[in-house]
Amino acid sequence: MSAEIEEILKRYQSYPNVAGIIILDPFAIPIKTTMDYTLTVHYAAVVHTLAAKAAKMVSSLDANNELMTIRLRTKQHEVVIVPSESYIIIVVQKPGE
Amino acid sequence: MSAEIEEILKRYQSYPNVAGIIILDPFAIPIKTTMDYTLTVHYAAVVHTLAAKAAKMVSSLDANNELMTIRLRTKQHEVVIVPSESYIIIVVQKPGE
Repeated sequence: MSAEIEEILKRYQSYPNVAGIIILDPFAIPIKTTMDYTLTVHYAAVVHTLAAKAAKMVSSLDANNELMTIRLRTKQHEVVIVPSESYIIIVVQKPGE
Repeated sequence: MSAEIEEILKRYQSYPNVAGIIILDPFAIPIKTTMDYTLTVHYAAVVHTLAAKAAKMVSSLDANNELMTIRLRTKQHEVVIVPSESYIIIVVQKPGE
């Protein structure tokens, strides 16, 4: 399990301009983070409910469809949310140069 | 106003693999759509609440930040949501070949 998490971390750290990575368990508990504690807990709380809402939205529009990723582009950075069966992965990217 | 909407529609129609475009007013009322009525109304309802939740999430993490776009990648297509001051634009794209 821990090796799998390290693997996920390594994979997303290879993305360009990564400012931080948070891995949550399915109950929104942070199990790995590269960001500070306060921000991690805050991200965990808001991303968890947003991901649940988005997944419900997708399946309500089409029961055969399924959410893969959410990408939030903001003025300051981009947040990629990858909900999987075992984890919710949050990657914060700074805008490219 | 109507010319502006036609302009928005034309711009997003030039995107690759566009399956449908819906333009909502800030109260989630569809003012232009290329999709069927039932699906348009359904999208309007779910996207409106998701966009509001995502915008609140972004500003709650950082009061100086602002949401620009939401991109939902699903098994079947990609949904791009662009909330602006006057409109919420929804673009449904089929996956690229």
